[in-house]
Amino acid sequence: MMKPKIIAFDADDTLWHNEPYFDEAQEKFCALFDNYASHQVILQMILNHQVKNLPLYGFGIKAFTLSMVETALELTQNQISGNAIEKILKIGKELLEKPVELLPNVEAVLQELKGKYRLIVATKGDLKDQHRKLHDSGLGHYFHHIEVMSDKTEVDYSKMLGRLDIPPSDFMMIGNSLKSDVLPVLNIGGWGVHIPYHTTWAYERIDFEIEHENFKAVATIKEVLNIL
Amino acid sequence: MMKPKIIAFDADDTLWHNEPYFDEAQEKFCALFDNYASHQVILQMILNHQVKNLPLYGFGIKAFTLSMVETALELTQNQISGNAIEKILKIGKELLEKPVELLPNVEAVLQELKGKYRLIVATKGDLKDQHRKLHDSGLGHYFHHIEVMSDKTEVDYSKMLGRLDIPPSDFMMIGNSLKSDVLPVLNIGGWGVHIPYHTTWAYERIDFEIEHENFKAVATIKEVLNIL
Repeated sequence: MMKPKIIAFDADDTLWHNEPYFDEAQEKFCALFDNYASHQVILQMILNHQVKNLPLYGFGIKAFTLSMVETALELTQNQISGNAIEKILKIGKELLEKPVELLPNVEAVLQELKGKYRLIVATKGDLKDQHRKLHDSGLGHYFHHIEVMSDKTEVDYSKMLGRLDIPPSDFMMIGNSLKSDVLPVLNIGGWGVHIPYHTTWAYERIDFEIEHENFKAVATIKEVLNIL
Repeated sequence: MMKPKIIAFDADDTLWHNEPYFDEAQEKFCALFDNYASHQVILQMILNHQVKNLPLYGFGIKAFTLSMVETALELTQNQISGNAIEKILKIGKELLEKPVELLPNVEAVLQELKGKYRLIVATKGDLKDQHRKLHDSGLGHYFHHIEVMSDKTEVDYSKMLGRLDIPPSDFMMIGNSLKSDVLPVLNIGGWGVHIPYHTTWAYERIDFEIEHENFKAVATIKEVLNIL
């Protein structure tokens, strides 16, 4: 039995679908540069640019778009057409306009938890975009606080909890990324719950198992109700 | 005499210099496209793209960079070289790496106010970039809370104050933008203090005078101490 007082949910791929939209965007990008390299090579190249740019750009769709433009320059050795650049910007803007599709049972679980716990959204990405998605999701009224984080390291979580006056031992984080939602929270003394999503961004993958008394893995968000 | 309990400071061009860096970046951009249009025309074109993109991109340097790319496509009717695109990305990245130069007397004033008021930073822009600047400024320890806002409308301020449990009548906002830092705060019942900066982004300019019992204009941040 886990006894947190404050429960934070990751947003992308925990409350609503996200990664498939990025996959689709990357496929569109690859199709533009079919003549230059295999999809696999191109995807790796995008990832390299994203990771290299993280310290300056952070997470989110604008950073992703700028990294796609850089990838296109690298792929074509700067011999890219303005039309192709225009198409890349369009891929980014389409991502920013995707509908918000909730994952199954999200609303029922929030309804059940509301009033019993202080509920928070803790997410990375573009500020404007995450606010837009939360608004479009219709879930805003379930949450006491929305935190768009520039990263999800132990330091970032500690700062957030300090600011919100939450002892780590009262704090549970629920999300689809072991790397960002679970590990750092366990390491600062909180509770971590993993709900896998069927696809994970390469940057978020880890290749070891977690065993920890404050850790729980569940198959779906509905099962969160069983561990509280 | 103004009697707020919580004082929020805008960051860019209130705590540290910012707009001159953007001006310099725009001049570099204009120089790249000297053959296509006058600087004045190009600057207006960038602004048009920025304003058109605000609902999707929000504020900040990544949005600015993407709008510069769009402007370049428009200027050249998509006949732009990869090298020029690369230079535009570089202009954006240089902006993200600018040193943080405090305005005069900022630290002395914060030192004086600390302990007497709850101090907040309330700023727009890129999440990552604003956190970086606050860190580099060395001012972080003066503030109870850092709020990077996706916009500064009445609704945004009301939401923030609600979340932080601050009655508007206890809240004072200090900044260089009448449009973003003063007007919306006055309209929701807070106190607004304007400290002009020598140059203002065209988007933030308003062409009327403000008269309001909760409004004060001062010439420098030091004068804030006289009105409290």
